[in-house]
Amino acid sequence: MAKKEVKKIVLAYSGGLDTSIILKWLKNEYGCEVVTFSADLGQGDELEPVREKAFKTGADKVYIDDLREEFVRDFVFPMFRANAIYEGSYLLGTSIARPLIAKRQMEIAQIEGCDAVSHGATGKGNDQVRFELAYYHFNPAITVVAPWREWKLNSRQALINYAKRNDIPIPITKKRPWSSDRNLLHISFEGGILEDTWLEPPENMYVLTKSPEKAPNKPQYIEIEFEKGNAVAVDGVRMSPAELLAHLNTIGGEHGIGRVDLLENRSVGMKSRGVYETPGGTILREAHMAVEQITMDREVMHLRDSLIPRYAEMIYNGYWFSPEREMMQCMIDDSQKTVNGVARLKLYKGHVRTVGRKSESDSLFNLDFATFEKDQVYNQADAEGFIKLNSLRLRIRSLMLANKK
Amino acid sequence: MAKKEVKKIVLAYSGGLDTSIILKWLKNEYGCEVVTFSADLGQGDELEPVREKAFKTGADKVYIDDLREEFVRDFVFPMFRANAIYEGSYLLGTSIARPLIAKRQMEIAQIEGCDAVSHGATGKGNDQVRFELAYYHFNPAITVVAPWREWKLNSRQALINYAKRNDIPIPITKKRPWSSDRNLLHISFEGGILEDTWLEPPENMYVLTKSPEKAPNKPQYIEIEFEKGNAVAVDGVRMSPAELLAHLNTIGGEHGIGRVDLLENRSVGMKSRGVYETPGGTILREAHMAVEQITMDREVMHLRDSLIPRYAEMIYNGYWFSPEREMMQCMIDDSQKTVNGVARLKLYKGHVRTVGRKSESDSLFNLDFATFEKDQVYNQADAEGFIKLNSLRLRIRSLMLANKK
Amino acid sequence: MAKKEVKKIVLAYSGGLDTSIILKWLKNEYGCEVVTFSADLGQGDELEPVREKAFKTGADKVYIDDLREEFVRDFVFPMFRANAIYEGSYLLGTSIARPLIAKRQMEIAQIEGCDAVSHGATGKGNDQVRFELAYYHFNPAITVVAPWREWKLNSRQALINYAKRNDIPIPITKKRPWSSDRNLLHISFEGGILEDTWLEPPENMYVLTKSPEKAPNKPQYIEIEFEKGNAVAVDGVRMSPAELLAHLNTIGGEHGIGRVDLLENRSVGMKSRGVYETPGGTILREAHMAVEQITMDREVMHLRDSLIPRYAEMIYNGYWFSPEREMMQCMIDDSQKTVNGVARLKLYKGHVRTVGRKSESDSLFNLDFATFEKDQVYNQADAEGFIKLNSLRLRIRSLMLANKK
Amino acid sequence: MAKKEVKKIVLAYSGGLDTSIILKWLKNEYGCEVVTFSADLGQGDELEPVREKAFKTGADKVYIDDLREEFVRDFVFPMFRANAIYEGSYLLGTSIARPLIAKRQMEIAQIEGCDAVSHGATGKGNDQVRFELAYYHFNPAITVVAPWREWKLNSRQALINYAKRNDIPIPITKKRPWSSDRNLLHISFEGGILEDTWLEPPENMYVLTKSPEKAPNKPQYIEIEFEKGNAVAVDGVRMSPAELLAHLNTIGGEHGIGRVDLLENRSVGMKSRGVYETPGGTILREAHMAVEQITMDREVMHLRDSLIPRYAEMIYNGYWFSPEREMMQCMIDDSQKTVNGVARLKLYKGHVRTVGRKSESDSLFNLDFATFEKDQVYNQADAEGFIKLNSLRLRIRSLMLANKK
Repeated sequence: MAKKEVKKIVLAYSGGLDTSIILKWLKNEYGCEVVTFSADLGQGDELEPVREKAFKTGADKVYIDDLREEFVRDFVFPMFRANAIYEGSYLLGTSIARPLIAKRQMEIAQIEGCDAVSHGATGKGNDQVRFELAYYHFNPAITVVAPWREWKLNSRQALINYAKRNDIPIPITKKRPWSSDRNLLHISFEGGILEDTWLEPPENMYVLTKSPEKAPNKPQYIEIEFEKGNAVAVDGVRMSPAELLAHLNTIGGEHGIGRVDLLENRSVGMKSRGVYETPGGTILREAHMAVEQITMDREVMHLRDSLIPRYAEMIYNGYWFSPEREMMQCMIDDSQKTVNGVARLKLYKGHVRTVGRKSESDSLFNLDFATFEKDQVYNQADAEGFIKLNSLRLRIRSLMLANKK
Repeated sequence: MAKKEVKKIVLAYSGGLDTSIILKWLKNEYGCEVVTFSADLGQGDELEPVREKAFKTGADKVYIDDLREEFVRDFVFPMFRANAIYEGSYLLGTSIARPLIAKRQMEIAQIEGCDAVSHGATGKGNDQVRFELAYYHFNPAITVVAPWREWKLNSRQALINYAKRNDIPIPITKKRPWSSDRNLLHISFEGGILEDTWLEPPENMYVLTKSPEKAPNKPQYIEIEFEKGNAVAVDGVRMSPAELLAHLNTIGGEHGIGRVDLLENRSVGMKSRGVYETPGGTILREAHMAVEQITMDREVMHLRDSLIPRYAEMIYNGYWFSPEREMMQCMIDDSQKTVNGVARLKLYKGHVRTVGRKSESDSLFNLDFATFEKDQVYNQADAEGFIKLNSLRLRIRSLMLANKK
Repeated sequence: MAKKEVKKIVLAYSGGLDTSIILKWLKNEYGCEVVTFSADLGQGDELEPVREKAFKTGADKVYIDDLREEFVRDFVFPMFRANAIYEGSYLLGTSIARPLIAKRQMEIAQIEGCDAVSHGATGKGNDQVRFELAYYHFNPAITVVAPWREWKLNSRQALINYAKRNDIPIPITKKRPWSSDRNLLHISFEGGILEDTWLEPPENMYVLTKSPEKAPNKPQYIEIEFEKGNAVAVDGVRMSPAELLAHLNTIGGEHGIGRVDLLENRSVGMKSRGVYETPGGTILREAHMAVEQITMDREVMHLRDSLIPRYAEMIYNGYWFSPEREMMQCMIDDSQKTVNGVARLKLYKGHVRTVGRKSESDSLFNLDFATFEKDQVYNQADAEGFIKLNSLRLRIRSLMLANKK
Repeated sequence: MAKKEVKKIVLAYSGGLDTSIILKWLKNEYGCEVVTFSADLGQGDELEPVREKAFKTGADKVYIDDLREEFVRDFVFPMFRANAIYEGSYLLGTSIARPLIAKRQMEIAQIEGCDAVSHGATGKGNDQVRFELAYYHFNPAITVVAPWREWKLNSRQALINYAKRNDIPIPITKKRPWSSDRNLLHISFEGGILEDTWLEPPENMYVLTKSPEKAPNKPQYIEIEFEKGNAVAVDGVRMSPAELLAHLNTIGGEHGIGRVDLLENRSVGMKSRGVYETPGGTILREAHMAVEQITMDREVMHLRDSLIPRYAEMIYNGYWFSPEREMMQCMIDDSQKTVNGVARLKLYKGHVRTVGRKSESDSLFNLDFATFEKDQVYNQADAEGFIKLNSLRLRIRSLMLANKK
């Protein structure tokens, strides 16, 4: 493949060894100006030191942006309004972050007059797809440089040698035998020792959650309030989206909630094991479903539920910025107009369970039917006609089958 | 409504006060022969004493049948091959039992030459629908007598008075402030104090599970083996379907697993709170999904998952014996041909979590690609073309939108 | 069933024999005030004479409203934005009219302080369901009187006798051996001789369309322009929704377009033959699909198409005024933002066929890719990676299956 | 891209200029043995002369196989049991042929000990995907050579020059300004002048159908009989699948039936205009739907219909040999057990229309309900309970909404 021409590039930069090598490699191979961009999505690391690191490794300009509120408000919450879950288990913590990073990266590309963008995702994973689909959405003519698909640095040793040759400091901490990605919604682990799908992940891997065995011996009850499907308060205290999620992470982490071990299907066609900690998100989803139970119409719920596998697939596969996701979001958001109420949850040793739900404004349960005469709302005798007509096609079919014999 | 003519009727009879009153009421009102039928579905009660009770209350003939193996093998397992779940929470323990009771009841009706059947389900619930849709499937011309929709005994006191007048013994134990239904798959609770949807159910209500707080302080690991999507062994010991489910109930109950508190949508159109204990079923579903993770094709899984809300709805609404359920079962069963393998699970204080899965025969993960040259299976460079073409329609659309501005 | 108490009732009144008898019967049986309501939905009859007829038969007040524009704009067009079709053939001409009639009827009920409404639909058909579901939407406590389900006038002769006894004039024209319903969207025929499903309907039954054999020997070409999925002009002439549909009915009728003969499934559970003439609607749907072809994203289209059977079912079954239909409409309407363009159609002897489509603003076809370098939009080599990764899961599966042997 | 090593290759060979050049190019570039394979799928050309041509152009071995019966029986008919249609218009005539060609090609590869296969599909179209997904299904390690994605012969002139240099005879007939693909199910046209989506295709393009204007002035009636969803006889004469389809092509072509002009979405992400003639297939689909109308359960039909867009997409995108298509076929075939009956159709000037349908064994319409008492099957009064309970959730919601105000 002929090398593309690049004048100025924005690199999604974490400050770690890999993206530092990429930064230098871009300078070496493309001879272009490099703008680095680091997003604060709540990954828990201090990002400011990244600035100096980037300049030292050759960056021409450095962007560091706090995107936490935008992340939760415009990405996490819309997705949670849908109860999205991938393959029955994964709450899409990494999938939902990539489009936002790409969006901001493309804004910077425009501000800075860049003709290319780059990321550090490998050629076997989902993240390259998520980044690049979003890049192309914002500028279909952008040049994308994906070093892992281009370079020959295909082993850890080759990378380290490259770093040494290029004066990139190599962290002295031993590399952990898995890779991970963290933001306000979750932390994920994959690769390394996790590739033995039969082996339980080691306890020392977990970051956001206590072991259930070490969680408090007393359950904790919390109440979460929702307005139009969005969580707005915990135990009566209103919080911004990012504050609320961070707060639930703390509580959920304390109780060991939200660990998932999944062998999942990647968009590129292979299976891959992912282990996740999503303490706040797990609580949030349970609470949201509880409030839906009391406020959402049955047919709305069943129709919506049948579409969630497809919606989650869109997000997992990188189609956040797509007309089909937006179209489905219209439907989902319409379904949330009445999702106003409070869920009561019990947290205990790795598990969260609904124990109560109420809605003053939108309850569809046990309304005061005072305006009705007795039996006007529900007359038991009506059930006979209901059953008779619902069974009519089955009875006719049974007759037909009997006649055939 | 004119009273139907009935000569001989089969009554689904539990031996409790309500169906005893119905038995007598049928004799009094219809002047017909009454055959009672009691099914052992693993509800945990000794059924033999029911025989004497039935005769004493006026039964002309009594059937008591052990249907446990048929229940698990032909009803529970096919449903679990689909991972069926209603409204995200309910494992359909009562829904799946009704069609089997109705099936056997209709067989007895034919053996005994009955022209009618009767059941004790009320006119506001789902069970009347499930019973009667199944009855009509087997005989579209059968006469159905649903006493709760016919009689005037609309209060507890009226029932007790009726019982007293008719020499039906009234249990001295105090009635619990909820109603329940139990079988090998679950026990359900509804009504009474549960109708306050904000109130946590009392601990003394639970029957099958220990409180998580009182469950063992040490986690337990178990392994469940599947063949064609059906569980066949636990920790290496092969068991029949009913034995296996009973065994998992014991283990799961000990660890407080499978409690669910749900405000659900009934088929007759109202919301209703159901609290469930499904210890073995909860474990079984988790294990089944784990084995599917390693053996099931991605598109098969996603397509299947999109249909499960509809499949679960069919079962919940009483359409087990319907061409649409059977047609969907064909598809589900085809998807299970490769679901052969073992799941490893961790049980601890109310929660079950997958920690490993393997399949010797059908793993789609990390196969030995020895027959391939390096990079022939997966060449990272392929990802570029994959992303480029997957984004093509999005890039064209972005161009169009940009041109519009 | 105990007779309900009714003080004042609004009757959906056509002026025909049946609803005249109902008008008198309501007076006789319920002793209530009767307000009649006749809607002009473009059924082609002069409605003004109905006024006198109603008063003569005993009406206390008469409403006659021209709802044609509202009908097409707010009911027909939203449905056509979805390409809704029931069981592959029926364009829902009657189904979509009933909710509007019910809506206006309920408005009148409120204006007039009525406690009840009534309609002339029989107890075996779909229309009773459509009317009553809509009534209850607007007032869940309204009393509904459905004479055909209540009275004993179960034969034509009984009706005629009743009319004679009550001085209701009996039309001298012979009753046609089928029943029909007409509005701006279609005319339907059912019952009578049509119940022989093997017999071709007689040529003299058709009202809106010439026989294809008698249609012009020369094809006609027309162009229809759409904005946001709604037809706004024919052959360059802008028209209001009702005018446009009427115009297409004239053209389509001349060419014998839009006859459909369908054995369909009613919502009450039986099959029923319906024969339809929908000349304008048939043209409109073809044109709309043509403009979608050039302006709609692939995934949007495929997702939408998978939901249309469900959407059409909602309308057919009477759930126009339901949260699930409204929620789906949000999604459909979002998909129509870009459906701007022109379709060119050929009309000839019973058939309409697209022969061209264009969109100046929203075409996704063959854009001028001038801003791109050669091969940047589409590089044939990309297809290899696309195919390789799309086939990855299939190749892995084939390996697994081969290993099993 | 490094050239792959190839020893012996099977080429899907039509005998035309393009695949002749490919044959020679494979010899020149890969220096490998070339086996040609030509399939008779009813494309209407004499294939025997292809043998000599292949040898003259350098083939080492030649296969010519008549696959017509297999094509219709095992590919076309299963697809028609589903009423599959792509984007509302395209009957998938080319899509369904590719997997069969690939299947036979891979069988030959195994017989002949080939390590590679090749085809003449371009790098911008669907067919490369369909061929190669099927190749990989049969042998995930096969080497695929796709000359159009590899060579530099990117213009017509380059091809002709190559042919001249290599002594490949160039047809003297002028190339038509479109490309086409024909088999027993259809002929397709695309490219060239058709890329102006506003222009009507010229009348002289059509091959299988008379112009409707020149079709007979008298309609023709035909009857088609189905067993388990497969057509088995026309006008009482039983025929094999391929005979029957050929017969319907003749009749349909005479009446100008089955022309479709579609701007469709390709699997590689662009829109493309396709014009099709599918005379027999169009008749077959209409007839099949007519027999389903009288024999298929409502819920089975509606569920099936909601899945057809997805099923058609699978076939269009080349996933015939995939577990998801097979799984869906299980469901579809189960739905066809009762599809036994006869359709009566009217053919006239470009259009086919159902005018009758019957089924002696499986009709669900108007059965003789002799075993029932009057009103036992359908009691009009039942409709009230049916409507009341179906509206219950809507009434409760209306109350809630009213309370909110």
